[in-house]
Amino acid sequence: MRLATLTSGGDCPGLNAVIRSIVRTASSEYGSTVVGYQDGWVGLLEDRRVDLYDDEEIDRILLRGGTILGTGRLHPDNFKAGIDRIKENLADAGIDALIPIGGEGTLKGAKFLSDNGIPVVGVPKTIDNDVNGTDYTFGFDTAVSVATDAIDRLHTTAESHDRVMIVEVMGRHVGWIALHAGMAGGAHYTVIPEVPFDINDIVKAMQRRFQMGEKYGIIVVAEGALPKEGTMQVEEGEVDQFGHKTFTGMGQQIANEIKRRVGQDVRTTVLGHIQRGGTPTAYDRVLATRYGATAAMAAHTGQFGTCVALHGEDISVIPLEEAVGKLKTVPLRRYERAQAMFG
Amino acid sequence: MRLATLTSGGDCPGLNAVIRSIVRTASSEYGSTVVGYQDGWVGLLEDRRVDLYDDEEIDRILLRGGTILGTGRLHPDNFKAGIDRIKENLADAGIDALIPIGGEGTLKGAKFLSDNGIPVVGVPKTIDNDVNGTDYTFGFDTAVSVATDAIDRLHTTAESHDRVMIVEVMGRHVGWIALHAGMAGGAHYTVIPEVPFDINDIVKAMQRRFQMGEKYGIIVVAEGALPKEGTMQVEEGEVDQFGHKTFTGMGQQIANEIKRRVGQDVRTTVLGHIQRGGTPTAYDRVLATRYGATAAMAAHTGQFGTCVALHGEDISVIPLEEAVGKLKTVPLRRYERAQAMFG
Amino acid sequence: MRLATLTSGGDCPGLNAVIRSIVRTASSEYGSTVVGYQDGWVGLLEDRRVDLYDDEEIDRILLRGGTILGTGRLHPDNFKAGIDRIKENLADAGIDALIPIGGEGTLKGAKFLSDNGIPVVGVPKTIDNDVNGTDYTFGFDTAVSVATDAIDRLHTTAESHDRVMIVEVMGRHVGWIALHAGMAGGAHYTVIPEVPFDINDIVKAMQRRFQMGEKYGIIVVAEGALPKEGTMQVEEGEVDQFGHKTFTGMGQQIANEIKRRVGQDVRTTVLGHIQRGGTPTAYDRVLATRYGATAAMAAHTGQFGTCVALHGEDISVIPLEEAVGKLKTVPLRRYERAQAMFG
Amino acid sequence: MRLATLTSGGDCPGLNAVIRSIVRTASSEYGSTVVGYQDGWVGLLEDRRVDLYDDEEIDRILLRGGTILGTGRLHPDNFKAGIDRIKENLADAGIDALIPIGGEGTLKGAKFLSDNGIPVVGVPKTIDNDVNGTDYTFGFDTAVSVATDAIDRLHTTAESHDRVMIVEVMGRHVGWIALHAGMAGGAHYTVIPEVPFDINDIVKAMQRRFQMGEKYGIIVVAEGALPKEGTMQVEEGEVDQFGHKTFTGMGQQIANEIKRRVGQDVRTTVLGHIQRGGTPTAYDRVLATRYGATAAMAAHTGQFGTCVALHGEDISVIPLEEAVGKLKTVPLRRYERAQAMFG
Repeated sequence: MRLATLTSGGDCPGLNAVIRSIVRTASSEYGSTVVGYQDGWVGLLEDRRVDLYDDEEIDRILLRGGTILGTGRLHPDNFKAGIDRIKENLADAGIDALIPIGGEGTLKGAKFLSDNGIPVVGVPKTIDNDVNGTDYTFGFDTAVSVATDAIDRLHTTAESHDRVMIVEVMGRHVGWIALHAGMAGGAHYTVIPEVPFDINDIVKAMQRRFQMGEKYGIIVVAEGALPKEGTMQVEEGEVDQFGHKTFTGMGQQIANEIKRRVGQDVRTTVLGHIQRGGTPTAYDRVLATRYGATAAMAAHTGQFGTCVALHGEDISVIPLEEAVGKLKTVPLRRYERAQAMFG
Repeated sequence: MRLATLTSGGDCPGLNAVIRSIVRTASSEYGSTVVGYQDGWVGLLEDRRVDLYDDEEIDRILLRGGTILGTGRLHPDNFKAGIDRIKENLADAGIDALIPIGGEGTLKGAKFLSDNGIPVVGVPKTIDNDVNGTDYTFGFDTAVSVATDAIDRLHTTAESHDRVMIVEVMGRHVGWIALHAGMAGGAHYTVIPEVPFDINDIVKAMQRRFQMGEKYGIIVVAEGALPKEGTMQVEEGEVDQFGHKTFTGMGQQIANEIKRRVGQDVRTTVLGHIQRGGTPTAYDRVLATRYGATAAMAAHTGQFGTCVALHGEDISVIPLEEAVGKLKTVPLRRYERAQAMFG
Repeated sequence: MRLATLTSGGDCPGLNAVIRSIVRTASSEYGSTVVGYQDGWVGLLEDRRVDLYDDEEIDRILLRGGTILGTGRLHPDNFKAGIDRIKENLADAGIDALIPIGGEGTLKGAKFLSDNGIPVVGVPKTIDNDVNGTDYTFGFDTAVSVATDAIDRLHTTAESHDRVMIVEVMGRHVGWIALHAGMAGGAHYTVIPEVPFDINDIVKAMQRRFQMGEKYGIIVVAEGALPKEGTMQVEEGEVDQFGHKTFTGMGQQIANEIKRRVGQDVRTTVLGHIQRGGTPTAYDRVLATRYGATAAMAAHTGQFGTCVALHGEDISVIPLEEAVGKLKTVPLRRYERAQAMFG
Repeated sequence: MRLATLTSGGDCPGLNAVIRSIVRTASSEYGSTVVGYQDGWVGLLEDRRVDLYDDEEIDRILLRGGTILGTGRLHPDNFKAGIDRIKENLADAGIDALIPIGGEGTLKGAKFLSDNGIPVVGVPKTIDNDVNGTDYTFGFDTAVSVATDAIDRLHTTAESHDRVMIVEVMGRHVGWIALHAGMAGGAHYTVIPEVPFDINDIVKAMQRRFQMGEKYGIIVVAEGALPKEGTMQVEEGEVDQFGHKTFTGMGQQIANEIKRRVGQDVRTTVLGHIQRGGTPTAYDRVLATRYGATAAMAAHTGQFGTCVALHGEDISVIPLEEAVGKLKTVPLRRYERAQAMFG
């Protein structure tokens, strides 16, 4: 058999581990070959591919962040318009199955290809952990670890200076990173996109700490956090390509508001891209390796139109439609329970 | 309500996070108080206890390895003989529920107390990940991370010196740490207690690498690994308290055998206790915090004779007998699939 | 003898290690006692002090970021006006020598006290490494390590996305962190306050990389970087309390300019406070411990009006005027040599 | 000009950073080319060399542990016998200067070549920090950091279990790693090869801790530590190729003795090779990069028969005889002062 793979969307620790695992499983278990398309869907459209050999070089990429194939974003319209070209390219290269690795958008693309007769097995990829139908995605644990390390460091500075510190973490649509990093980092309040925040609650939580004799506070804010209607004036941002209105720098805006109300020194740190690069954690390397192996096996056993997924201790495949139907958001109950731990 | 907790058995990163979470949940959600017994079951027998307050001090222990309560081992016979004393002590202290945190032995003790009418909710603790009925236990991710970091470092030295390097990791009865650290660390062979090894297979795997032009190899060996009958002379060790025969330094023994057969320089590193101490990973802090919160909630809702457990994304309680019935071992299929990735 | 210590100015990893070392040396070597003033000079003025005992608690703070004494900033005028109050407080508390730990401002204060007859031994503290007369100061290695870790992570993301990434690091007046983190992180250009930058040079360096077939670039920018007169329009910031004009977000401004000229995707990460908090590196713990021990010894041998300093492998004391005379800036030659390594 | 380099002796984090820096400096500053001999002196004798280009590939090795050139050990006799062969090989390859990177043995070899008319600039390499004439060598900071991380983890386990823990670190002839890691890790006793230990002192130090109410102790032992004559029976080891008598497992032997005398549970961890592999710390990357650049400059300015060295903040060259005359040992005064901090 001859497999093809590509990586699409934002960078994510573990992409190379998936690629390595696909190549090694295909080679050692099935004697199959693998090619990689460069820069995501664009490379598939433009037929830019490289052979991926099961050699020492591929063995080494396990620890390497980023993706040796490069990644890119392609507008869904261009993608759909190119379907015939994609089919041709895959046929010309003798590809029996395609394994795209990417987030929700990529998996939607994978589903479109599958619906058009191309044998596809997807691998979900998102540091945000927002893909439906799987417990966790690789990259998420690394992002949470990086954010937690940062929060650990901010605690001591906040405490030495009697300050409120705000940490803005990734999570435009879902609050998983904020929830886990906030819990792991012992934050005193956490704000997620799923639950519009009331600035009064945040201020009260900080004041309660000060009244109890504590002198500082750590607040974790997901970048996509939004205030409850009418509770806080927000500086509006742009509308993104998906039609979502964005509010730039919500961490800073919350900081300004707390400072205004409490008079305490408030500082903001925006962690940004360090959450999505670099060597993956051991957890993510294991998950990515298992995803890659299962995807290669699914391709060899003809389980197309699917996507690999983690359920408990097991990796299996689920229909692509299950993965792309909706975003996996933080359940309200989990958020509320976690808040008891914060504060 | 008045809860009591204790930590028993070997050290494990995340113990303090569980204690903190029990105290904070009990206090903030239910207005309950918590006491801690010192040095495991011994402290319960000898009525050595401390009040645990929901204050800044308890908040800080989240990151701290070890256990502020101390831990200890007590022979099951002494434990059983002390049942009346334990009941008395709990009654005198006005304890409504006991939350012991420990491994299989501790949970067996918990079950014995529960069978004798004491309201108990257990929290499973093992860096080995061998407790039945739960996907993962806290401490395991930290142990795997520490072992993986070590393996990462050994790769470059092995390669620079054209050496085979053996890393002996924890796991007397099960190979979870070896399996995950071997996979995350890109080991070339992994040996676990569940599957007796054939030294010829290991030697062949290394020789195959050398024939392919690679010059080094990394082998991960769980401390409880054993050879297949008749394949290798082993130096016998002592018989432990549970009647298991132990073989000291299996890593070193395998190293000696490879050196003898292949003539290559082989070195052994025994990671030892660094796998079970220190600050927990973000993953383990989240899991430990959720375990503690769920245990406190279970105690307040009267779900006794149980033990908290992780299934997928959810924490719930399972009957204690499910947790103590058998060790959770690495399934043969998982091991075989992983070996395809090694080598 | 009875010593007093205090920590003043911005947070810095290693402050607690110095405090611990002063207490342990005073106690074990001289049988002396130590008190700590809280929140910097303010605590000395307001006579807020705590006894510091050579016990287990002080032993533990070695790894802890921040300062158990708290820190604060006091306007030099208020400080000078309070000199009689300070003398009184020290006399009332029976203090034989004062060991203030802080940056250039603190050491200037120390010199003022010394000039007014108070026995003082200073300990230089700055993550920026800008104190004159000492090779390195504790906190600097930790700041460089944190920044380097971040740069390591950004490499892979920049490469996967064919992006220029800008990392803004601390360093308002000097570029030591930028220089060292840029070199350790393999940056492709580094901008420091000592050498006004020409945006054309930066753009050319990036273009040269693209022409050579490389697809990304990492630029490290010290927060205090400034363009050469007339080479780039800059958005002016505020004037700080010391009369220095600040330019907010120079990293972002450079990013905007490159984007405008090159048309490449450029992203900025501002590392901020994570560089100054958290557990110190081993290097900083050793340096801080040796500083504290030497300061305690200097106090006991009457070497007042001094400040401890590192020269090569040795710690000694230098006159306070040497430490406060001027900032230690990056020599032009070192910067130029380093640029050969960047690019 | 055409330079050659090689790496010899044990693995050391930062070797690749030196190679990279030599290549980049030679190329960008002087337009020179560089070749690398493989596997140390052996490769030079056998004329196995590779061209090293100033490209993206060499840029990437900054973070990689080990050495891309491989390393090896060659008996001094064979080396000396091969001098004519070496001269021939260098002449045939058109090499104008040789930059060997290695420890004391390698630098002695470099001196021998230099004495025989070969233009040589050495780069000192030792994780042990025992090369004379330079403040620090790269690899040392990484080794100390790895050992300190391990000690940090052992503290919590020792404390939870009321145990004495012994950590055996590298240092066959000198105690720098033990001294620095012991100080950074807050050890309670440290044993180095330079100062024969009295087991009674160690036992007393532990007993003093227990009497003060503390329940555990951490002892750092350099692998080359030896007891004072007549104070402790030691199990003798083999005599190594250099005629040094070795005592295997001194950490374990001290553990056995303490256990016998105190009756406390004592455990030993031998850190081994993890101290000498893997990604270098930021400090070591900077030092290695500066060493490589200075060596390349020294070669281009004809400063042969030398070796690069760090003095304070500056890198310069010193005569090779200064570097190889004697081992740099821990001064007794530094050790005694440090012991005040331990305990």
